[in-house]
Amino acid sequence: MLSSRIGILGGGQLGLMLLQAAIDWNLEIHVLDPDAEAPCKKIAPHFHHGSLQDYDTVYNFGKELDVITIEIEKVNVDALEALEKEGKKIYPQPAVIRKIQDKRIQKQFYIENDLPTAEFILTENRNDTARHASFLPAFHKLGKDGYDGRGVQRIASENDFDKAFDQPGLLEKAVPFQKELAVIVARNPSGEVVTFPTVEMVFHPEHNLVEYLFAPAEIDPEIDRKAQETARQTAEAFQIVGLLAVELFLTAEGEILINEVAPRPHNSGHHTIRANATSQYEQHWRAILNLPLGSTHAYGPSAMVNLLGEEGFQGSAVYEGMETLLATEQVFPFLYWKFVTKPFRKMGHITIMDTDIRALKEKVEFVKRNIKVISKESH
Amino acid sequence: MLSSRIGILGGGQLGLMLLQAAIDWNLEIHVLDPDAEAPCKKIAPHFHHGSLQDYDTVYNFGKELDVITIEIEKVNVDALEALEKEGKKIYPQPAVIRKIQDKRIQKQFYIENDLPTAEFILTENRNDTARHASFLPAFHKLGKDGYDGRGVQRIASENDFDKAFDQPGLLEKAVPFQKELAVIVARNPSGEVVTFPTVEMVFHPEHNLVEYLFAPAEIDPEIDRKAQETARQTAEAFQIVGLLAVELFLTAEGEILINEVAPRPHNSGHHTIRANATSQYEQHWRAILNLPLGSTHAYGPSAMVNLLGEEGFQGSAVYEGMETLLATEQVFPFLYWKFVTKPFRKMGHITIMDTDIRALKEKVEFVKRNIKVISKESH
Repeated sequence: MLSSRIGILGGGQLGLMLLQAAIDWNLEIHVLDPDAEAPCKKIAPHFHHGSLQDYDTVYNFGKELDVITIEIEKVNVDALEALEKEGKKIYPQPAVIRKIQDKRIQKQFYIENDLPTAEFILTENRNDTARHASFLPAFHKLGKDGYDGRGVQRIASENDFDKAFDQPGLLEKAVPFQKELAVIVARNPSGEVVTFPTVEMVFHPEHNLVEYLFAPAEIDPEIDRKAQETARQTAEAFQIVGLLAVELFLTAEGEILINEVAPRPHNSGHHTIRANATSQYEQHWRAILNLPLGSTHAYGPSAMVNLLGEEGFQGSAVYEGMETLLATEQVFPFLYWKFVTKPFRKMGHITIMDTDIRALKEKVEFVKRNIKVISKESH
Repeated sequence: MLSSRIGILGGGQLGLMLLQAAIDWNLEIHVLDPDAEAPCKKIAPHFHHGSLQDYDTVYNFGKELDVITIEIEKVNVDALEALEKEGKKIYPQPAVIRKIQDKRIQKQFYIENDLPTAEFILTENRNDTARHASFLPAFHKLGKDGYDGRGVQRIASENDFDKAFDQPGLLEKAVPFQKELAVIVARNPSGEVVTFPTVEMVFHPEHNLVEYLFAPAEIDPEIDRKAQETARQTAEAFQIVGLLAVELFLTAEGEILINEVAPRPHNSGHHTIRANATSQYEQHWRAILNLPLGSTHAYGPSAMVNLLGEEGFQGSAVYEGMETLLATEQVFPFLYWKFVTKPFRKMGHITIMDTDIRALKEKVEFVKRNIKVISKESH
C-alpha cells in the first residue's frame, strides 16, 4: 500500500500536517486546492490548483490516483462516488462524507443508530424555525456548509429568531453542559479500531472556535469510558475508514451526547504530533492505507492553543512572541504557511507539554499572553 | 530570524529531515544538491540542482539567501568564506568546516585544545605510512573526503600496509575500547550550549557503519558526565554555531577519547525525532537562527536501527516487512526517498521505543530480522 498513488482533496493546514507525516514513508502525495497559495502549495510533492466542488476537476484529479482522501468535507461527492465505482479507494467513503456533510442527515443517523445526541427539530427556513419558541434556548444550525464557527447561531429567546438561517437546518436544544470533550477514532478497512485519549476543549466565548484544549480530559474514569465507547460506536456505525473526530457534550447530569463529528484529522488532535506515540496524521495514513493502527500512548499531559489572527489586523502576517515561546520548555509552535492574517483566522497552533497539570495550565496562560499574529498594516 | 531566506548545501536524508522539521515554522528552505533525484527533491520548497564543490554554483546559490547551512561537509568552503565576508550567516562557520573537513587538521586541533583523542601520526602517502610498523595495530584514515565508512582502513599488521591510502592521511592508534558513544551538542550564536543524552553505537562488524544505537548509553554516571563534558568542550573549542556530533571511544581503562566529529545533524541523532522533546533537526534550526535551544528531554529509552540496502540487490527499492514493523508498538520506520537500492546504501532508519530496556533490545532484534530493502531485480 505504500506505493499507492495518493491524493488529498484540500490543501489547508490539515493537509499540511498530513504531508509532514507522509514524509516518513516515502508517500508522494498529490494535493488539490482552489487556492493557488494554499498552505500545502510549497510542501506538496504535487500540487494541483482547482475547485473541490467541481465534478470534472475532482474526477480528473482522482482518476490518476489509487487512494483519495479529504481534509475538508465540502467536496464534490458525486465525483468521489464515480471514482469509487471505478475501483478507487476513497477514504472516508463518499457515503460517509454525504451523511456528515449535511447536519440534518448526520443527526438523524444518530437517532437511527441509537447514538446519544441532543434533541433537535428539522427546520426548512427562518419562518419555519420561528414556530418553535417552546423549544428554546437552542442552537440553529445550517444543514450544509457550516465550518469553523460559521453556520451556528444561538437562539436564546424569540427575539433571536431573526438570526436563524433562512435555509434548511435544524434547531438543537441547548443542553446545559459541564464540559465539551472530543475523541478521535481511527478505523481501517480490516475493521481495526483505535481511539486517542479523550481531550477537553475550551471554546472562545464569542467565536465558537476551540481556543485551547487539554489532554487527557479531567473527568471521572467512568465518564471517560462512556466517552471512548460512544466515539467508538459512532465510528463503527458509520463503518468509516480513516479518522472520525467525535465532539461530545458532558451534560450537567453526567450524560455523554454527540455534538458533531468530522471524518478527517481535527483541530482537537493537533497536540498528538508532539505528545503521542502516533499522531492523528500518521494514524490517518495507517487507516486509509489499511496498515496496522499505531499506539496512541501519550508521553504526558499536554495542551493545545489555537493561534488566531489578532482582531484589528489584516495583511502580511507577523508573529510576535515566537522567541519567548521557544525559550519556554516544551512549548512547540506550529505555523500554517498562511502569509496573510485576518481577525480570528487560524494561523497556527501551539502544543504545550508538562508532567505537572498545574504547571501545564500556567504555561497555557503564558503562551496566550505572549504570542500574537498581527500585520504591519493595522485596521 | 524566522523570515530569513535559508539554504542547505546538500539534499540527502539529513536535509530531508531538516526540511520536515522546518515545516513547523514556515521556513521556506532552498536546497542545493548535485543529484537531480536527491531525497529532498520532491519535498523542498525550492530545489536547486548543482554541484556542492563548484565555487560559482555555491556562491550563486548563497548570494540570494541570508542563512546558509550544510548537511554534508564536502562543500566548496572558499565560496562560503566569500559569502561570509559579504555578511551572510554561514553556520557552521566556514572556518569550522575547513578544520573538520580534513581529519589531519581536526586531530591537530584536539591536541592544541587539550581535548582527549587517540594518538596519531600524520602520513603523506602509502610508503610514508608503511614506516610506522611499531605503531600498529592502527587505523589509516584519509585526510579528506572520507564518508560513511569510506576512507578508513584497519592496519592490523605490516601485511596490511598495502591497504593504506596513497594520499595525505593519518595513522591512528587502535585503542582497545569498551564502547563507542556519541553526544550531539548544539550551540547558537549567543553562546548557549545544550547537549543531547549520550548514545551508545553498535557498528556493523565489516562495513564501519552504525548498525544500531541505544539511548541513553548504558554507562556509569561518572563516565556519562565525562562524555557530556568532553562533547561540550569540543563544541566550545570550535566555537561552532549549529550542531556538533561528537563520536567518542570509551576505552578499556574508562577514558573518554574523541574519535571524530561532524558539524551537522548526524546518524546518531535520528531517534530524537520520536524520542526527545526537541529533535536534533529542530535544534539545528534553533541554533543557526539564534533562537533559544530546545529541551533535549527524552520521553523514554529508545533505539535506532539503520535500514541498509540488502547485499545482492540493486535496483528499484522494495521494502519487505514494513507492515510487520508498523504492527509493533512504538516502532517507527523512516524512509529516505531513495528509489534505487544498492548493498549497504542507507535507505532509512527505524526508531524503537519501550519503557523497558530488555523489551527494547528484543524489539531491535525483531526489527532487524523483519525488515529488508531488496529490489525486484537481484544480482
